[in-house]
Amino acid sequence: MNTDTIAAISTPMGEGAIAIIRISGDEAIEKANVIFKGKHHLTEVDTHTIHYGKIIDPSNGQMIEEVMVSVLKGPRTFTREDIIEINCHGGLVSVNRVLETILSLGVRLAEPGEFTKRAFLNGRIDLSQAEAVMDLIRAKTDKAMNVAIGQMEGKLSKLVSKLRQALLETLAHVEVNIDYPEYDDVEEMTHHLLLDRAGFVRDEIEKLLITAKQGKILREGLSTVIVGRPNVGKSSLLNSLAQENKAIVTDIPGTTRDVIEEYVNVRGVPLRLLDTAGIRETEDVVEKIGVERSRQVLKEAELILLVLNYGDSLTEDDEKLFEVVKDMNVIVMVNKMDLEQKIDMEKVKQLAGEHPVVTTSLLQEQGIDELENAIASLFFTTGIDAKDATYVSNTRHVGLLNQAKIAVEEAINGIESGIPVDMVQIDLTRAWETLGEITGDTVHESLLDQLFSQFCLGK
Amino acid sequence: MNTDTIAAISTPMGEGAIAIIRISGDEAIEKANVIFKGKHHLTEVDTHTIHYGKIIDPSNGQMIEEVMVSVLKGPRTFTREDIIEINCHGGLVSVNRVLETILSLGVRLAEPGEFTKRAFLNGRIDLSQAEAVMDLIRAKTDKAMNVAIGQMEGKLSKLVSKLRQALLETLAHVEVNIDYPEYDDVEEMTHHLLLDRAGFVRDEIEKLLITAKQGKILREGLSTVIVGRPNVGKSSLLNSLAQENKAIVTDIPGTTRDVIEEYVNVRGVPLRLLDTAGIRETEDVVEKIGVERSRQVLKEAELILLVLNYGDSLTEDDEKLFEVVKDMNVIVMVNKMDLEQKIDMEKVKQLAGEHPVVTTSLLQEQGIDELENAIASLFFTTGIDAKDATYVSNTRHVGLLNQAKIAVEEAINGIESGIPVDMVQIDLTRAWETLGEITGDTVHESLLDQLFSQFCLGK
Repeated sequence: MNTDTIAAISTPMGEGAIAIIRISGDEAIEKANVIFKGKHHLTEVDTHTIHYGKIIDPSNGQMIEEVMVSVLKGPRTFTREDIIEINCHGGLVSVNRVLETILSLGVRLAEPGEFTKRAFLNGRIDLSQAEAVMDLIRAKTDKAMNVAIGQMEGKLSKLVSKLRQALLETLAHVEVNIDYPEYDDVEEMTHHLLLDRAGFVRDEIEKLLITAKQGKILREGLSTVIVGRPNVGKSSLLNSLAQENKAIVTDIPGTTRDVIEEYVNVRGVPLRLLDTAGIRETEDVVEKIGVERSRQVLKEAELILLVLNYGDSLTEDDEKLFEVVKDMNVIVMVNKMDLEQKIDMEKVKQLAGEHPVVTTSLLQEQGIDELENAIASLFFTTGIDAKDATYVSNTRHVGLLNQAKIAVEEAINGIESGIPVDMVQIDLTRAWETLGEITGDTVHESLLDQLFSQFCLGK
Repeated sequence: MNTDTIAAISTPMGEGAIAIIRISGDEAIEKANVIFKGKHHLTEVDTHTIHYGKIIDPSNGQMIEEVMVSVLKGPRTFTREDIIEINCHGGLVSVNRVLETILSLGVRLAEPGEFTKRAFLNGRIDLSQAEAVMDLIRAKTDKAMNVAIGQMEGKLSKLVSKLRQALLETLAHVEVNIDYPEYDDVEEMTHHLLLDRAGFVRDEIEKLLITAKQGKILREGLSTVIVGRPNVGKSSLLNSLAQENKAIVTDIPGTTRDVIEEYVNVRGVPLRLLDTAGIRETEDVVEKIGVERSRQVLKEAELILLVLNYGDSLTEDDEKLFEVVKDMNVIVMVNKMDLEQKIDMEKVKQLAGEHPVVTTSLLQEQGIDELENAIASLFFTTGIDAKDATYVSNTRHVGLLNQAKIAVEEAINGIESGIPVDMVQIDLTRAWETLGEITGDTVHESLLDQLFSQFCLGK
């Protein structure tokens, strides 16, 4: 493990009042002291104190910035190492120059997520908690944030640890059985106990996996596409969803030429609206629907809002749309109910089949509640209360839970079909190890590198 | 003056490792303590200390965020008031929720620049220093940053104060002359002394104003337009300037649909490239040149880069371009010198007249140094060394200096033409007051409101 001293800008890029440069490692305080000019030397002050001063270019003594420096001595820090945080005026040029000055002293630029990686490697948090930090930063809604907070507090870790503990105790019993195979009643007992314990672990994993679909939606947003002929009200729907729901977040794209996704919060369900630029600019999606590219967009969608015109007859284009989306999650919205009815609602319902049909007038602000209800109930039939429940929201965790479940089920099948207990032992051990990968108790360095590289810089 | 407690997010919006919420005012510590759960009460800790804990929703006791809270008691703070800084994970949702929780306690959302305004009103910095803070944040190059740092350290303030002091002493002498008009030799002495002192002030103001043009360029960037027929290499020039010069800053637009300006740093001169989106997308600017809109863009430009094709004859379009830009700052760039010459260079030089002509091959990376030299020397003939000089970079300051200069010149003319000294007194007093507006010693509330409203939120 690297224990050299690292530094990075920890605030978002952009013009702002304050920017923070964070330094962590054995030499953090000493290096910062070289370029700091204040009332005290940073090497002589107490931990968890703040000091006003200037950052000086050591090559020429010129002042670079006016700063507040926080001194945090390990192990009572995020990384458990010594940490310096330099708060400076948030200009792009000045922040970069302070960082460059620090790097010129032999401090290394931190990799994305490296501070959090150190927090994990030094035992301050486990892997699922580290992942929750990033989920918290990326949360699009309050509910998604609550899930992340819960995971950061260790809810998932505790549950996983409980299951691993149960598996470990079971394995200990198996061990007894292997060591004393001559006692028949031990085997009998073991058989019952194994089934009981393994069943418990399987049931708990299953409960967790039920939350996974909702958890993933909360975390990543529900990719949503609005389709319909021109002038049925797609732009109005977009604007209505955006205005009605306060917690809108627009991704700041990596470059300004990237496609922009908009997030809209509907009853706690974050909709990630795809291809909205296209809608806003052209109102001409039907034409594109036929082409391959648009089918691709639809394929990625987890929710389709199909908009029809109440004041117009169904056209061939409308029917084609129903055909294209028939196997997807669709809500049919018949808009413009303020107009004289020309649409054949029986035909609409027939085409819609199982999919819910909502009638609205965006112009008169009617039916929007029903639409939002339809969206919410499509995905959260059981209701969602992220405050108390433990949600699995991370694809990596879901994958591991599925693997662990399979291992436990194989163990149960094995027990029931009377295979030797040492075979059962292998399956249970595999389940135990797989669950350990969630919390990082059993984990490979390469996985860590890959995980933390998805973090933002300076975290 | 408002002394209520205010709060705002002080880091740039966006996903980042850390976000800061800043609270300032009498109740800052007490209010923060209501929602903070840590080892100590914030009301009981020392100033300039940092505390780990959780932010709790006081309505239900639910944890909102894991935070580090800095406690800074006035007057040793930026605003001279008590300040709390809450460092939390930089997610958009979580940061906003922490802010909302604070505001729910009766803390008011700070207006843009309100923290800095308080720093000024409470006497921590003068007005030109406050303005320098914003210049520093917006600085596009190292040199612009140095100018801002100098001004923030009080370089301009000191110079202005010196001039005001000189005026004040002169006014005292005038007073003596008015009080004892019976002594002829006093009037004689006063006449000489007035001319001497007023002349000194005028000369110093003139010296400052000479720096103003360069200062403004350093601060705001040199608005630059690239023109030329299609396929002469405008896009390549744009890319070349962008790649060669590391300190590129792209403005993050207020909304993603705004026009984007790109900044490129050429030998310390920040070029603000206008209408680059047009170039990148269409390569079709000549066609637009004829239309009114493009003339408008050209009118705003302080530098025109007129690109011609070495491997092609001059066309009517080229000549039209020369005609349009003839009274502007133009650098003529004959690109594609790697091709066989078809252009009539004599004709180019004749058309260019006084304007510099540079021959390049962007493809073979030739002539770019010459181009950059031409740009730099066009604006900084005397060389620029922002490290030591006092630059005036702010339009408001330039305006006030010009007014003060006029007042002093009127005083000098008055003295020379022998008008009564009490008339001279009026002019000198006006100069003294005008200079005071730079540092904010004499300033109106409405000006303050207008000035600080241009600051970013949370500053």
